[in-house]
Amino acid sequence: MPHHAFFDPAPRAHSDGLFLRDEVRLANRNHGALLETLRYDVTPAGLHYLLNHFDVPYVADASAWRLDIGGKVRTPSSLSIEDIRRLPQRTLRVTLECAGSGRANVSPRWLSMPWMHGAVGTAEWTGTPLRHVLERAGLDIDTVEVAFFGADRGFDKGVEHAYGRSLEPDLALGDDVLLVHAMNGQPLLPQHGFPLRLIVPGWYGMASVKWLHRIEALAEPFDGYQQVHSYVYKKTAQERGTPVGHMRVKSLMVPPGIPDWWTEQRMVEAGPITLYGRAWSGAGVPITEVEVGVDGQWSQAQLGPVAGRYAWRGWQFVWNATKGEHELACRATGADGATQPLEAPFDRGGFGNNMVHRLQVTVR
Amino acid sequence: MPHHAFFDPAPRAHSDGLFLRDEVRLANRNHGALLETLRYDVTPAGLHYLLNHFDVPYVADASAWRLDIGGKVRTPSSLSIEDIRRLPQRTLRVTLECAGSGRANVSPRWLSMPWMHGAVGTAEWTGTPLRHVLERAGLDIDTVEVAFFGADRGFDKGVEHAYGRSLEPDLALGDDVLLVHAMNGQPLLPQHGFPLRLIVPGWYGMASVKWLHRIEALAEPFDGYQQVHSYVYKKTAQERGTPVGHMRVKSLMVPPGIPDWWTEQRMVEAGPITLYGRAWSGAGVPITEVEVGVDGQWSQAQLGPVAGRYAWRGWQFVWNATKGEHELACRATGADGATQPLEAPFDRGGFGNNMVHRLQVTVR
Repeated sequence: MPHHAFFDPAPRAHSDGLFLRDEVRLANRNHGALLETLRYDVTPAGLHYLLNHFDVPYVADASAWRLDIGGKVRTPSSLSIEDIRRLPQRTLRVTLECAGSGRANVSPRWLSMPWMHGAVGTAEWTGTPLRHVLERAGLDIDTVEVAFFGADRGFDKGVEHAYGRSLEPDLALGDDVLLVHAMNGQPLLPQHGFPLRLIVPGWYGMASVKWLHRIEALAEPFDGYQQVHSYVYKKTAQERGTPVGHMRVKSLMVPPGIPDWWTEQRMVEAGPITLYGRAWSGAGVPITEVEVGVDGQWSQAQLGPVAGRYAWRGWQFVWNATKGEHELACRATGADGATQPLEAPFDRGGFGNNMVHRLQVTVR
Repeated sequence: MPHHAFFDPAPRAHSDGLFLRDEVRLANRNHGALLETLRYDVTPAGLHYLLNHFDVPYVADASAWRLDIGGKVRTPSSLSIEDIRRLPQRTLRVTLECAGSGRANVSPRWLSMPWMHGAVGTAEWTGTPLRHVLERAGLDIDTVEVAFFGADRGFDKGVEHAYGRSLEPDLALGDDVLLVHAMNGQPLLPQHGFPLRLIVPGWYGMASVKWLHRIEALAEPFDGYQQVHSYVYKKTAQERGTPVGHMRVKSLMVPPGIPDWWTEQRMVEAGPITLYGRAWSGAGVPITEVEVGVDGQWSQAQLGPVAGRYAWRGWQFVWNATKGEHELACRATGADGATQPLEAPFDRGGFGNNMVHRLQVTVR
């Protein structure tokens, strides 16, 4: 492959407000939730965020799909989707967010998918806990990681690879990591991993490998590109960094009123108006508080019901809108005391940006 | 609303390769088909292109939805979705493309949604021919246009309006313009117009008004923003221009091989490889020929079956890939003799760009 395919995206300041063509091309392919559709408890089909590194595999015949389990196991095996459906089934409502969500607001900006706000979605995922497959295969005592490989393949910075990620055995053998064949009661859509994917609740989306076709138990830590080079928190190019893992506490607001097509500006009628939104965290940490900021003054929002350990929580707040220009914001806090920062935390790759969501609103 | 909300997007040269933040924000909201999913005859849920001018309306209760028919009619009326389902039903497979598809390749580039290639999709739409509703209402003899209004509302260049478009009575009274409540056998998804939309086969997507809640027969031509200001072919700001109407003949190719994440470069193995794609036109004009270009040498592709007057047609071509760098292209021709240009036709708003689709491929 010629050198021009190996563009190495060094961080670029976005203070000039401009974006590269390749960023826009990625934004044509990968889409976020529309903020107004955060009103739905479960994200409707096609509105869940998408971040695909390579092409969506074309799978004409799911009955021919095989999941191979090998490496450091006693009994290597190869399962069909039917085999997986015959194992004990579980449905979990899980909120997934892309680790790069909000990257476009980090300065300087890493050149990748230029997410603004909404790379998040919630679905009901059905499948079998991964442990049923791993226990049948029998992990060797010296297994230190379990790696998962998708059928999607391509290049990143000159490195050819199938999309792959790993988990530690303790997590992989828990009840909540699922091998999933259905989303919201329907077979997976092609772009969400049909016919089989992993779901790792509480983690940023990169852990939930799509188009899963191979599992490998490893005696050494997995050194795949997406594990050690791509999803790593770093402040500088030189440092080793910290792997991206659980989702950070975050919240988003349904923009009130009506929009301007070209800007994000909103127009709202004066008077009492109910603001809606969602809040979530990672690792199953409950959301304990959401605050709404109006021109920098914070008040408590009312939390909706808990819909599962890994699902976002709705919130609402009645705002008495007065004529003029206003800035609205929302900020969630988890049971572990973690809360959202007012400014974007700097990360070289633009990962984990959970700064408060702000909106500019004109009231008439 | 303050002046900053009324940004007037003058055409901007994209020879510097840079895009504005507001363009990227629109690309976060509106998404195209992924080119690899052109393999599907009918676009799977969530992969059909989306171009929404304003927010997706939140419709919690479709049974409360009303379609009001008024203006120059003998019998104004108000219909529920159930009323519409009781009228004669028809299902049509229709390919829709956004009028701005390919805008990012027109120079200078109009500042709007920066579409690269794939703002297109095909679905099976079910509903009643619009004429059943119009005939029951009884258009006055002096009706010159019928206008359609969605529930989506907002500002564009300072003009507040509900999204609205019009058709001439002859077209509106034909059998093929549908009031649609289902897409691919399921209720419309929120982002595709739930619970009711118009489908105008053969036209660019802007005619197919979503979240349809009002029809008005007019004795004067409709002067709504989206009819007379937005979707108009113009070379200069001064001219009156020509309304955007039928889709122009066009084709796209499924990119062969595997991609590089950051660029559009493809890597293909040497040897015979089948290239797949789709071709379509507007106004029901059949596709009669698709050519595939390899390094500027054109050959005929094999056309797939016709799947309806308004649906795209599949094509394929076996390419004997030889090692090295290659440029692939595809070009469709319709029964009216219209074919795709090699360069993007200039339009100030970036509408109707049907230039041939080109891909850079490395064969190893």
